[in-house]
Amino acid sequence: MTDARLIGIDWGTTSFRGALMDAGGRILDRIEDRIGLTAIQDRAFEAALEAAISPWSGDARLPVIASGMVTSRTGWVETPYLPCPAGADELAGALTAITTSAGRHLSFVTGMSFRHADGAPDVMRGEETQIAGIARPGEQLLVLPGTHSKWAHVSDGRILGFRTAMTGDAFAALKDHTVLRLTTGSSGGDGQAAFAAGVRTGFAEGGAGLLGRLFRLRAGALLGDYPAEETAERLSGLLIGTEIAEAHRFAPGLAAPVVIVGGAELATRYAAAFAALGMAAEAADPDAAFHGQFRIARQAGLV
Amino acid sequence: MTDARLIGIDWGTTSFRGALMDAGGRILDRIEDRIGLTAIQDRAFEAALEAAISPWSGDARLPVIASGMVTSRTGWVETPYLPCPAGADELAGALTAITTSAGRHLSFVTGMSFRHADGAPDVMRGEETQIAGIARPGEQLLVLPGTHSKWAHVSDGRILGFRTAMTGDAFAALKDHTVLRLTTGSSGGDGQAAFAAGVRTGFAEGGAGLLGRLFRLRAGALLGDYPAEETAERLSGLLIGTEIAEAHRFAPGLAAPVVIVGGAELATRYAAAFAALGMAAEAADPDAAFHGQFRIARQAGLV
Repeated sequence: MTDARLIGIDWGTTSFRGALMDAGGRILDRIEDRIGLTAIQDRAFEAALEAAISPWSGDARLPVIASGMVTSRTGWVETPYLPCPAGADELAGALTAITTSAGRHLSFVTGMSFRHADGAPDVMRGEETQIAGIARPGEQLLVLPGTHSKWAHVSDGRILGFRTAMTGDAFAALKDHTVLRLTTGSSGGDGQAAFAAGVRTGFAEGGAGLLGRLFRLRAGALLGDYPAEETAERLSGLLIGTEIAEAHRFAPGLAAPVVIVGGAELATRYAAAFAALGMAAEAADPDAAFHGQFRIARQAGLV
Repeated sequence: MTDARLIGIDWGTTSFRGALMDAGGRILDRIEDRIGLTAIQDRAFEAALEAAISPWSGDARLPVIASGMVTSRTGWVETPYLPCPAGADELAGALTAITTSAGRHLSFVTGMSFRHADGAPDVMRGEETQIAGIARPGEQLLVLPGTHSKWAHVSDGRILGFRTAMTGDAFAALKDHTVLRLTTGSSGGDGQAAFAAGVRTGFAEGGAGLLGRLFRLRAGALLGDYPAEETAERLSGLLIGTEIAEAHRFAPGLAAPVVIVGGAELATRYAAAFAALGMAAEAADPDAAFHGQFRIARQAGLV
């Protein structure tokens, strides 16, 4: 494709997505592959990348910009975190560039760090690029749901601060490795209502009381308060409702709606959670990562 | 032992403890066995019990009183929960008695349930008997640390209400099955200081913000804020500090000291947590379960 000017790669621990873009950042073609970082043996990142983007081999020597966990300690190139506040400009200035043995020019977008008011640290890798792809005027609160959900306070595209909640990671661990596993295996009942009830419980009292509420899922199933097969949906709702309450304390002054960034399934689940709380939310463009890569690449003069 | 009048059995999912008691409730002899309920095949509870207490076979036909998960759905005899408020009197009145094929008279102490102000349920099996063994005048807040820690509001020996926190269960799941597992495997640094720092972090803001604080353990290890090998102690402290904050909201008006009931190792850990918060606490008699069994048995006319 002769219009192609840039290849964007979103390379995570378990996922690999690529986009071929033109000089205006329009997406000409896409690939997905199962070569998440944990699937790469002996640090054979270059061979894996070239194999994955081989459909675009007619566009050899196109520059590649990569973001995600590929810049973590277990990735291809470890890069230091860029502190907040920062945006696309600083990310462009902090690119780490290499030229591969095949002569390919490759730029890595680094992750970002933030210090909370009490000095406690937060980090992300990959989400900063998605956020850079959502260039809206004014202030927003963004949520990027996931294993480690990110909530970012953004002003005119710059990330002023962010907060991570270990929601997805904790959900999987608590669902399969605590007493709740006795009833999370089956699903049934009214899943949507169960999820919404969990969300409202988690959101109450500013998200405090989680260790108690986790056990009440067990007690409620034992006493027949709710159908035991609803446990997994109630747990999911409880954790997401808790996460929303925690984030609300993190950025209490921000006007709605919250902008939901990310994949369709989780975005839908979080939209349902906001609806259960009567809170306004809207979904962002799911290609935010590629838009962010393009914006950073243009800022750096790569296209 | 001709003075023996009662055998008390504390039979849990993974533990079995027995005591031989005289007419005054003094403990004449003890046994411990690995026949937790999950180790019993084909519901062979009677055979397992008789084998375990065979050292006391010279005292055949002594009545047995049993408490713990042995009355749960997966135990020997499932008994309904007794609602709070209740104490030794009600527990004695709610005993479930059977006579085994060997002619042994066996009484089961049932568990208790509680409804929180918002209607959410809580349950326990075994701890009600330990609490019945701690007969002190006036009001107390008791903590029984464990997989599912119990906090009981007790007045003149009667349980007015209680609250469970899924602390130990969540600790094991989060430690071994989230991203924290990458650094919880090794131990080092100043474990006591790390634990205390975790307790204080968990207790702050009334225990709210746990999902965020869990991730900051990861971020702190990545950024070198603390030695990564302290992760497990910090996680333990974070969860116990959160549990204490949650319990403080549950029973805000109760005067110190909190009474710690239970096994030595966990009791020591909780005592260190209270010390880190500058809160008064004291340890109860570790034989509370047997004392409670004796008190209930006497109330029921079994001795």
